[in-house]
Amino acid sequence: MNSLREANTRTNAERLEIARNALVSARIDALMCRLPENVLMLSGHWPLCGDAVLVFPAEGNMVCIVPETQVEEVSAEIWDAQILAYAHGRHDSPDQEREIERCLIDLANKNSWKTIGYEGTFEGIAAPGNVAEPRVPSKRFEQLLKSATSKATFIDAQELLDLLRKTKTAWEIEKIRLANEIANIGFEVFFEMVDAGRSAIELAAAVEQAIMVKGTGYKKARRVRAFAQVAVGKDETLAGWRPFEVTTNRKLQKGELAILELAVVADGYWADRTRVRVAGSASPELQRLSDIVKQAQDAAISAIYPGVCASKIDKQARGIISKNGLENEFVHITGHGVGFRYHEGYPILAPGSSQALLPNAIVTVEPGVYLPDFGGIRIEDDIVVTSEGPEILAPFSRQLS
Amino acid sequence: MNSLREANTRTNAERLEIARNALVSARIDALMCRLPENVLMLSGHWPLCGDAVLVFPAEGNMVCIVPETQVEEVSAEIWDAQILAYAHGRHDSPDQEREIERCLIDLANKNSWKTIGYEGTFEGIAAPGNVAEPRVPSKRFEQLLKSATSKATFIDAQELLDLLRKTKTAWEIEKIRLANEIANIGFEVFFEMVDAGRSAIELAAAVEQAIMVKGTGYKKARRVRAFAQVAVGKDETLAGWRPFEVTTNRKLQKGELAILELAVVADGYWADRTRVRVAGSASPELQRLSDIVKQAQDAAISAIYPGVCASKIDKQARGIISKNGLENEFVHITGHGVGFRYHEGYPILAPGSSQALLPNAIVTVEPGVYLPDFGGIRIEDDIVVTSEGPEILAPFSRQLS
Repeated sequence: MNSLREANTRTNAERLEIARNALVSARIDALMCRLPENVLMLSGHWPLCGDAVLVFPAEGNMVCIVPETQVEEVSAEIWDAQILAYAHGRHDSPDQEREIERCLIDLANKNSWKTIGYEGTFEGIAAPGNVAEPRVPSKRFEQLLKSATSKATFIDAQELLDLLRKTKTAWEIEKIRLANEIANIGFEVFFEMVDAGRSAIELAAAVEQAIMVKGTGYKKARRVRAFAQVAVGKDETLAGWRPFEVTTNRKLQKGELAILELAVVADGYWADRTRVRVAGSASPELQRLSDIVKQAQDAAISAIYPGVCASKIDKQARGIISKNGLENEFVHITGHGVGFRYHEGYPILAPGSSQALLPNAIVTVEPGVYLPDFGGIRIEDDIVVTSEGPEILAPFSRQLS
Repeated sequence: MNSLREANTRTNAERLEIARNALVSARIDALMCRLPENVLMLSGHWPLCGDAVLVFPAEGNMVCIVPETQVEEVSAEIWDAQILAYAHGRHDSPDQEREIERCLIDLANKNSWKTIGYEGTFEGIAAPGNVAEPRVPSKRFEQLLKSATSKATFIDAQELLDLLRKTKTAWEIEKIRLANEIANIGFEVFFEMVDAGRSAIELAAAVEQAIMVKGTGYKKARRVRAFAQVAVGKDETLAGWRPFEVTTNRKLQKGELAILELAVVADGYWADRTRVRVAGSASPELQRLSDIVKQAQDAAISAIYPGVCASKIDKQARGIISKNGLENEFVHITGHGVGFRYHEGYPILAPGSSQALLPNAIVTVEPGVYLPDFGGIRIEDDIVVTSEGPEILAPFSRQLS
């Protein structure tokens, strides 16, 4: 343990109050988190590699345990917290796990936590800053937590954390708006570049490049990355409804479609957007399909208000598409939560979803149609649920050509 | 379960034999894997999102359980395996976990596996194709595995998997060489672009873009991504020894250093490389420091042969640097394993490391010096341990300017 210091106070106070109240209600004395998305939500720090451990008590200051090599970065963004740093990264540095354990034992001795919440079950995770090699809280880490604070009872807090994430504070909405504004930098490049002769991988790489270069520093964003999937032509865009697409070096031909599925992360907050364009001018039929998808998106968005059932939003979009005889061509759901992750599990806008939309939830609305004779068309935006009506984050042109 | 079919036979037969022998020795009847790096090693398939489950028996065909939306992609790269596909991704698709469970129960009923190995403990993981949102085998997944094959005994096979990964087959070495050749595409762009006025983020984004565009399709590589960290100027490169750096929009000035730390993944196999350049011409002192680092790298590489102690390689590099009075400026280790991940835990080339280098291990050699008055210089290449001597994968110029 090399330093213990006070950090800054630019705080998302609303989130802290909500989280502390939730802990008190659940009779949890402290949360111990390591997943980047949870550390970010509770502290403002987006972990670099996934090895920050956040101890977030119901009462008193939170503590973030980090390698000393990351103290500067953590201090620049974390809210009112103590930073506990340990030696790391040098050829003679001690073992990282033992260092973290030492910090936790010290904290447990100084406090009288009886019940501790941890990330017991998770499946999908948001990438940390180092997307190439995430570190995740394994069973070994769970054992470390438990042995370091052996007097406490451990509770899986995944459900509580999921609950906290369902609605976004004003502070978080601005962060997610920023990620969406930065996504538009990518759309601008995509709209400019889509033309006959351009390959899918060329379009994807140019979008990612523009977002990294122009997004870094945009309204003080510090760490910005984009993940673009581009499908071009009839066959690729027809398959473009699938959860993950491989971007090829196939070249666009005149009159063909290009779909850009785009995830953007800015300092840990995510946007999920989609646009589709035609190389050259759109045929009347593609224009008609695009108009139907836009109408479906408009209908779904206009039905978004606090308390509405998620299936009703889906029904609005599906209704427009069905009315045009394309009910079998809209194969996927209408939308999902977004913000702390590229895809969040709440809400799910789908037939049969009985979830009610909470105020300040953020949801994608992304209807699409996929026809063997023409290819696929999807449009996606991120919408905030407010009592004043749906708020589209950073709107952008939906023109096909 | 929608389809059950035979896949192709372009197989890494050496790996299959090694893995099956290891299972027999460990008295494990089948491995059940989900981490992308392990699925890749044992089957040739680099999971798209992290939701492929590979059942790899000591005897008989392996089976890969995947969403039906991924069957085409899996078939294009997996070796001799059965693909078990389930409905997924449509608005009316059944629950994914229940589908996987159903497939596993069916497999368990058809076989008489008594002992099953699984990925019980892991910390760092290699990103799957979808780097933005990896899925990881959580405790819930472990429970699913156990309940689906309830008659078997479960063994944590992490140690066995780590052991398998210590040495690379001829097939794998070619894949890792390919990732290194693609890394050189990034170096070419970096060497061309480093100049006064270029920002760190601009350099990083251009390197990633070139690798995506020119790497996709290069010698049939299908899914290629780069993760570049660039530090520019004295202060940033001085801190460039740390495990993770934030790339800023600071602009290079004449005579300053730029370091590129580069991870490249090509179809799941990784390269880890570093080069350093000067904007304009290098001062005599920077040239001297660069020459020392090159000599240190040469000395370490020339000491690499099967059976040598890892600390001896480190000592070679550290000796050259110390001889030049810079022992305190070479703060980090000399190298680490690479290939199935950006950083592997075996071998570690560091003082005090007692590991012996196995033939066909692949290791980075990356000495560096970091001086407050000048900044940091590091050079990194990936080396295969062979009885004919060290083999540098895809050598590239180490010139400073």
